[in-house]
Amino acid sequence: MVWDRDHRVRFYFDYISSNAYMAWQVIPGLAERYGVALEPIPVLFAGLLKAYGGLGPAEVPAKALWMWKNNMRKAAILDVPLNPPAFHPFNPLLSLRVSGTDVSDDERNRMIEALFRAVWVDGRHVSETEVVKEILDDTGLDGSRLVEEAQSQEAKDRLKEQTDRAIADGVFGVPSMVVGDELFWGYDDIPYLERCLAGKDPLDPAAVPSAETAPRPSAVRKESRRDNS
Amino acid sequence: MVWDRDHRVRFYFDYISSNAYMAWQVIPGLAERYGVALEPIPVLFAGLLKAYGGLGPAEVPAKALWMWKNNMRKAAILDVPLNPPAFHPFNPLLSLRVSGTDVSDDERNRMIEALFRAVWVDGRHVSETEVVKEILDDTGLDGSRLVEEAQSQEAKDRLKEQTDRAIADGVFGVPSMVVGDELFWGYDDIPYLERCLAGKDPLDPAAVPSAETAPRPSAVRKESRRDNS
Repeated sequence: MVWDRDHRVRFYFDYISSNAYMAWQVIPGLAERYGVALEPIPVLFAGLLKAYGGLGPAEVPAKALWMWKNNMRKAAILDVPLNPPAFHPFNPLLSLRVSGTDVSDDERNRMIEALFRAVWVDGRHVSETEVVKEILDDTGLDGSRLVEEAQSQEAKDRLKEQTDRAIADGVFGVPSMVVGDELFWGYDDIPYLERCLAGKDPLDPAAVPSAETAPRPSAVRKESRRDNS
Repeated sequence: MVWDRDHRVRFYFDYISSNAYMAWQVIPGLAERYGVALEPIPVLFAGLLKAYGGLGPAEVPAKALWMWKNNMRKAAILDVPLNPPAFHPFNPLLSLRVSGTDVSDDERNRMIEALFRAVWVDGRHVSETEVVKEILDDTGLDGSRLVEEAQSQEAKDRLKEQTDRAIADGVFGVPSMVVGDELFWGYDDIPYLERCLAGKDPLDPAAVPSAETAPRPSAVRKESRRDNS
């Protein structure tokens, strides 16, 4: 997208947000580097929450659009295909359960790859048993057998156990990547995962608080929601 | 933090998530590059939501801890100071209103820098008028005059207008950076902002949907929440 260089960078922030603080360390230099004006605009984060009150993130059209464009940018940079799904949201139970059946690591990876592509490239409806069978058959697996296994009580229980295990691992969203005790959340965390794998995690372990005492950088006091008079 | 290289990378995912799809394009290669095993674990994202049901993100201790560690990593990499705030959440109204008073661009930038540091480095309580006055005085500004101005109806109205303007700009969280019609959200979006500023935005404008028709990659069907039997 061609951007009009005469535009200013509008930087919306609230002191309540440590991510805003971090961004402020970088944005002024960035604006200077590209010779564009910076317009910092203080806003009340609680006011934004109130404006979208009662709606989950994905139900806010502005956020849904941002998220999709963000995904399109990542796909373009990675040079991987990404298409709007034909069916979404959809019921993922069958596809998740079949992915937990007893197959080899290599078969599981092929199955996962095929199911992700079915949703995010080919617009297929992976809630349908016939569709999942076909996808697995095309991947060289026995679709009928695996779909039947995925419908067993054992497969249902396994998915529940996996989700419980995720929660025990501190997982609160997907994708999450866990190595040892370290949880990395979201695509944007991959660079930090990579540093960890390389033995170069910049985190000072002595400064890490417990989950109970950790600051809550996106928390908002209720009184500031009321007091915007 | 030293990471035990014998550990596996656990990758939690749900097909419902396009970010999980994008991560899947990168994680297997990453694991291979560092010679570690990859353990993909399908989980029901709706089950995670249900487990934390009724709690805002910052109220989930696991997420608060993740967010703080994520912030510590960013601070270490940027080599900027970051300390747990002494008062948080706090009422940000005074600090936001004073930041919108009629001063020069340079004075505003110094004021923003000083207020961010007060919260995220020095653990000061910027809800208190005396504290804000002192911070501004120390920055070479007239603290008493600016704090008085910040308490005027005009300053209150201005912050409301700024927040309304943010909403009109499609902003749903902070920090947000807007150039022209492009909204970048969060610290993690800075690399995409930079590409945009450099005239290298990888986004294909022809493929961008409207806010109303955009896919909602984190949306979850209610039936899959119910049907985890």
